[in-house]
Amino acid sequence: MSAPVIGVDLGGTKVLSRIVDPSTGATTGRAKVPTPRTGIDDVVDAIVGTVSTLDPDGEIGAVGVGVPGPVDDGVVLRCPNIAGWDAPYPLRDRLEQRLDRPVVVVNDVDAGAVAEHRLGAGRGTDDLLAVFVGTGVGGGLVLDGRLRTGPRGLAGEFGHLTVVENGRRCGCGGRGHLESYAGKAGLEAEARRRHAESPNHLIGLAQDGRIKSRHLAASIEAGDETTIALLDDAARALGSAIGSLATVVDLPLVVLGGGIVDRLGEAFVEQIRGHLDLGGFGADVVELVMAERLDDAGAVGAAALAADMLA
Amino acid sequence: MSAPVIGVDLGGTKVLSRIVDPSTGATTGRAKVPTPRTGIDDVVDAIVGTVSTLDPDGEIGAVGVGVPGPVDDGVVLRCPNIAGWDAPYPLRDRLEQRLDRPVVVVNDVDAGAVAEHRLGAGRGTDDLLAVFVGTGVGGGLVLDGRLRTGPRGLAGEFGHLTVVENGRRCGCGGRGHLESYAGKAGLEAEARRRHAESPNHLIGLAQDGRIKSRHLAASIEAGDETTIALLDDAARALGSAIGSLATVVDLPLVVLGGGIVDRLGEAFVEQIRGHLDLGGFGADVVELVMAERLDDAGAVGAAALAADMLA
Repeated sequence: MSAPVIGVDLGGTKVLSRIVDPSTGATTGRAKVPTPRTGIDDVVDAIVGTVSTLDPDGEIGAVGVGVPGPVDDGVVLRCPNIAGWDAPYPLRDRLEQRLDRPVVVVNDVDAGAVAEHRLGAGRGTDDLLAVFVGTGVGGGLVLDGRLRTGPRGLAGEFGHLTVVENGRRCGCGGRGHLESYAGKAGLEAEARRRHAESPNHLIGLAQDGRIKSRHLAASIEAGDETTIALLDDAARALGSAIGSLATVVDLPLVVLGGGIVDRLGEAFVEQIRGHLDLGGFGADVVELVMAERLDDAGAVGAAALAADMLA
Repeated sequence: MSAPVIGVDLGGTKVLSRIVDPSTGATTGRAKVPTPRTGIDDVVDAIVGTVSTLDPDGEIGAVGVGVPGPVDDGVVLRCPNIAGWDAPYPLRDRLEQRLDRPVVVVNDVDAGAVAEHRLGAGRGTDDLLAVFVGTGVGGGLVLDGRLRTGPRGLAGEFGHLTVVENGRRCGCGGRGHLESYAGKAGLEAEARRRHAESPNHLIGLAQDGRIKSRHLAASIEAGDETTIALLDDAARALGSAIGSLATVVDLPLVVLGGGIVDRLGEAFVEQIRGHLDLGGFGADVVELVMAERLDDAGAVGAAALAADMLA
């Protein structure tokens, strides 16, 4: 085994830290606290606290942190899901001071992509896109074996690719973005709109609560036409966006994960495959596979990048 | 000045070779022959012939060749515009045998992108897309300072990004691709279709001949509504495709060139800018500039890559 490192998954609701063997992805130890809603300083304290819980004597050589926002060279530009984090903050430098060891800070979706690339469904491939379809849609791009973050940390906003001109309104304010068709939040908004005109099974299940992936599965099972149509729109949007990117950067492999894909499984992947638009290439140019659903992929992927610093 | 290298631009109608100073892009010497229509062996002879004309004693250390087709590791997969070249051919290895020196083979659009990156409008930027809008639409992508060709040489088919679902038929057989809206061939097909219903100025100028970029400029000048509408569609398609790619890979700079852009100039670039769709980012995230229209950019870019082998 390689020297262990610590991986931290900073989420909107919890801070989770694990000790990770970067060569296998095996995790030991687990320290978890709720994400403070009282400002960045307290979030930093929470991260430091979970790391110290796992490694009280500071013996582990490096720490990787996955965060829910764009990152440029260790600076987290913003975290819309964390209270008070609406301006750039130099998280890497701050944590290196506090923890007295090298720290990597990476977007959490990118961390998930790294985990799939190194330890999951993308092992052995140097070029892949990992797409996670949940409440929103996120994507992480690995090119020539390296995570593509871009010169300003803006790369990977895959959910905000435009797939329909002047299409559905997206949570970001734009129109026709992938996320507004394939993300659960976008699906739910559209299902409720249609429900008001003609009741559908999906909203019947969810009632006033949030739609869950299992509701989607149950409504398809029940043959609900609205749900089937919405998921076909989702698959078409995913096929179009994946096809476009694959056409321009040459992607042999796309790894699909996230709550909706996990729940709907291979049938949904096949549906996406049917909508791939590859600019004149045959569909066999891109392989679509399900993610391996690694436990704590965000923490593991961040840890894998941290381990690179010790190599 | 750096040691000179030879750059070759293999086109559908001519083979052009030049001696290039890779540090400045300055060219000396020029050898040009028509592209043989009698098979690949004769094309290889033509390339070797022009190189020998420029450098009869074989004193120049490396040769770069730009070709009108996809290239994977020195193997040209196909050249639709060259008679008889419909299967992969190991051009690099064959030329290295014949010329007894290191050879680089690169797609010609990619060579143009490298020229703009190293010596043109993209100097000083490590991440850019160069888009050439002519009869078709081609794009070359430089990421982290390196040309992105992809693991199978398929990267860069920018003209075949889908911009309109079930849209216009593209020359490749697909539908709604960028090239069918922004390329001259696609513009012409649509203008002729509309002309049959209601005569327009553009086809009035071109008559039965091919539309030229100057015809487009003249018809806009004349206030022809069809031409204005078609070019707005072209700008919208370009803005959508550029915005999508910039959103996913983080592109600070897009260099625009090719016959249509050269002729219509900054006004057309401004029109594209107005249609940029950047997935929630502000439009100032991407700078759009005109290419520097380097002479023989394909030969110069290929030569620049060849010079890397001597460094």
